Amino acid sequence: MVSKNQIKLITSLQQKKYRKQHQLFLAEGVKVVQELIDANYELQDIFTTQDDFSRISSNKRHAVLPTDLKKISALSTPNTCLALFSIPKAVKIESTGLILALDSVRDPGNLGTIIRLCDWFGITTLVCSEETVDVYNPKVVQATMGSISRVNIVYVDLEKYLLDAKLPIYGTFMDGKSIYKEKLPKEGIIVMGNEANGISNSIENIVSERISIPRFGNLQLTESLNVATATAIILNEFKRIEI
Amino acid sequence: MVSKNQIKLITSLQQKKYRKQHQLFLAEGVKVVQELIDANYELQDIFTTQDDFSRISSNKRHAVLPTDLKKISALSTPNTCLALFSIPKAVKIESTGLILALDSVRDPGNLGTIIRLCDWFGITTLVCSEETVDVYNPKVVQATMGSISRVNIVYVDLEKYLLDAKLPIYGTFMDGKSIYKEKLPKEGIIVMGNEANGISNSIENIVSERISIPRFGNLQLTESLNVATATAIILNEFKRIEI
Repeated sequence: MVSKNQIKLITSLQQKKYRKQHQLFLAEGVKVVQELIDANYELQDIFTTQDDFSRISSNKRHAVLPTDLKKISALSTPNTCLALFSIPKAVKIESTGLILALDSVRDPGNLGTIIRLCDWFGITTLVCSEETVDVYNPKVVQATMGSISRVNIVYVDLEKYLLDAKLPIYGTFMDGKSIYKEKLPKEGIIVMGNEANGISNSIENIVSERISIPRFGNLQLTESLNVATATAIILNEFKRIEI
Repeated sequence: MVSKNQIKLITSLQQKKYRKQHQLFLAEGVKVVQELIDANYELQDIFTTQDDFSRISSNKRHAVLPTDLKKISALSTPNTCLALFSIPKAVKIESTGLILALDSVRDPGNLGTIIRLCDWFGITTLVCSEETVDVYNPKVVQATMGSISRVNIVYVDLEKYLLDAKLPIYGTFMDGKSIYKEKLPKEGIIVMGNEANGISNSIENIVSERISIPRFGNLQLTESLNVATATAIILNEFKRIEI
């Protein structure tokens, strides 16, 4: 059973304003929820239609019907469980190694996929501009498939952060140097831009190394890659040299 | 003005059964529609709230209100135009060069992104198993951003197709050889598997070259890449050697 007040609270967490106010976020699905629990995220409540989480203390665990889950889920097809976690305190940003920075990535699916890529490539610091979609948006949490717990994600004034940074700053532009020919370093900041507009002018001015992904298709027509697939290719190029 | 019959026909095209019956598909948004017109797809009707397509002959062009567009759109936020095109005749499959094959990719966004990747990397033949999501699904058409017109996409009995193929067949598996170390050829078929289950057993038996994308993160926990980002990395590795 889910009370009216719980439904109101939980559905409000689909909005950033209320996540900030309550310092809570939603996660759905056994895999994602289990990974967050294992990573010591502070669990507030868990609503489940099955016995998946029988080892969770019972005052946090609520047995619910699929119809109840539908009322509180952010998904069009609800999973078998939904959990509320406290938003963890922001961590200090690492200033060494390979760092990924996002300049206004807006699509939740893209941010989730990029977090999964960071996890795969061992990138532990993801710096987001304040205009980037909120990492605790339920669609982002879902798309990370649990890897959100293994990447430190911080929101900053990106311009200020990059101006203060001591590492070389890489950005992708149509006229940049081929990533296949550049000698890519083990340490640096890679900036990826917005879905529609790419890297903003103010950030472009701070980029020290302009790179590009070579195209093989019809050069007149093929326009661009999706930001998540471009990130996949660029992280692959930076990391492959380590092997 | 859109008639009741038109609304009925157009919304029915969100389902594969009716696309097949009428041999028509939907495209939305000026960019996608314009690219399909430029690529000589046979336009049946175009519904637009603006004068974007004033050069289209007027018996095909229907000026509509945003409220009309909402009734016929497959998008939650309708664009300024929607067009109906005839489904083109299937092309003959190329049997040379680099070919991508999909074994039951189900998510429309993933298929659309993969088509965009084929276009970027100059892969002109995409072979899909019959279980792969239909390329004329409106969400796929949308996600291709127009590149659907530059890639030949065919649906086949994938097992039979691969058994008859004369090229080496590459498949990605956790235990495969590192793509950074393998000598990758200019000609071959690359098979990508389903989002949840990877490459099916019957197809796995036909794969001649087992490859893998090395992981750098926590090997215990990081589980997998999204199929579209994995495709991005693999196509990049096959093509980068050409430069």
